[in-house]
Amino acid sequence: MEINIILFSDFETLDVFGPVEIFGKVSDWTIKFYSQSGGLIANKDGIKIETKSIDSIINKDIEVLFIPGGLGVRSEILNIDFINQIEELAKKSRYVLTVCTGSALLAKTGLLDGRKATSNKRSFDWVKTSSAEVKWMGKARWIVDEKYYTSSGISAGIDMSLGFVCDLLGEDIADQIAFRIEYHWVKDNEDDDFCKQ
Amino acid sequence: MEINIILFSDFETLDVFGPVEIFGKVSDWTIKFYSQSGGLIANKDGIKIETKSIDSIINKDIEVLFIPGGLGVRSEILNIDFINQIEELAKKSRYVLTVCTGSALLAKTGLLDGRKATSNKRSFDWVKTSSAEVKWMGKARWIVDEKYYTSSGISAGIDMSLGFVCDLLGEDIADQIAFRIEYHWVKDNEDDDFCKQ
Repeated sequence: MEINIILFSDFETLDVFGPVEIFGKVSDWTIKFYSQSGGLIANKDGIKIETKSIDSIINKDIEVLFIPGGLGVRSEILNIDFINQIEELAKKSRYVLTVCTGSALLAKTGLLDGRKATSNKRSFDWVKTSSAEVKWMGKARWIVDEKYYTSSGISAGIDMSLGFVCDLLGEDIADQIAFRIEYHWVKDNEDDDFCKQ
Repeated sequence: MEINIILFSDFETLDVFGPVEIFGKVSDWTIKFYSQSGGLIANKDGIKIETKSIDSIINKDIEVLFIPGGLGVRSEILNIDFINQIEELAKKSRYVLTVCTGSALLAKTGLLDGRKATSNKRSFDWVKTSSAEVKWMGKARWIVDEKYYTSSGISAGIDMSLGFVCDLLGEDIADQIAFRIEYHWVKDNEDDDFCKQ
């Protein structure tokens, strides 16, 4: 299975690489990185990572589309061409996963309207402005609504990714990966210590 | 403060980017990536990240040197020039941090001889062969011995990095970062669920 990760300037480091660590431990899952124009994408942590252009996968059937959050979301949400690309990619995807404020980019397409979703609790009020039609869940480590998986902030993406592996391949496989990377997996998606309530 | 991260082919994704997430949250800490020859460094998770050559910092005073683990350690430990470079860098560093099997690369220099250190528990027997003179600790999330911080496997690097921030800047700052990234920090470095005992 192919995991297609969409990057943009000032993506949040662990939003991306926590889930990458999990998916990379599943045999025969491969990870590919894309951005609007391709080439090196940088963030504030000094990372410059090589990506391919989104054009190379637009209109193709996609197994997993993955959208991180980060400071860059605040400007990318105003980038209409990028939002339109995300909409096209998400419609052709079997699963769509977001971490942190990545759910705002997805919500901006309208594809989450009427669905349950979550996001980073410290940016929650801002994220809600991306679409008032989404059933934003204030207490959740992550939320699954059919093909859409949205997680809370940063580290929660690791728990959601283990939950995604669990849903597709079973709890034993997810447990083995968590043990192998010496990670304390929060298995209950409603066990959220970081919400405001 | 500058965090200087040493990369090599097939580094472990989260060994690097878990700590990067933590250090990137400290105002006025900056992160730089280096490798033996510079340029793009790839790993099995599809990551290609831009680095500078180690030559550009050799013989300079370094604040923090950071060495991850990963499958690539198995070949890099036989790369004498690389081990010599790590030795030179570590001698000139105020702090040296390793995650997972990164401690084997550091131990191979001899600089950990007579000191306490730890590593990934699933590679522990192999890591011990890098130097018999190190006091390898089988039950530890991370170990501090003067300027040397060594952590257990993969996710443990996040806990050690928060511990490092705690030691330098205080527990409040480390707590705030853990909360901000919605991470359950294991504060006790001896609280190790993943050891063999």
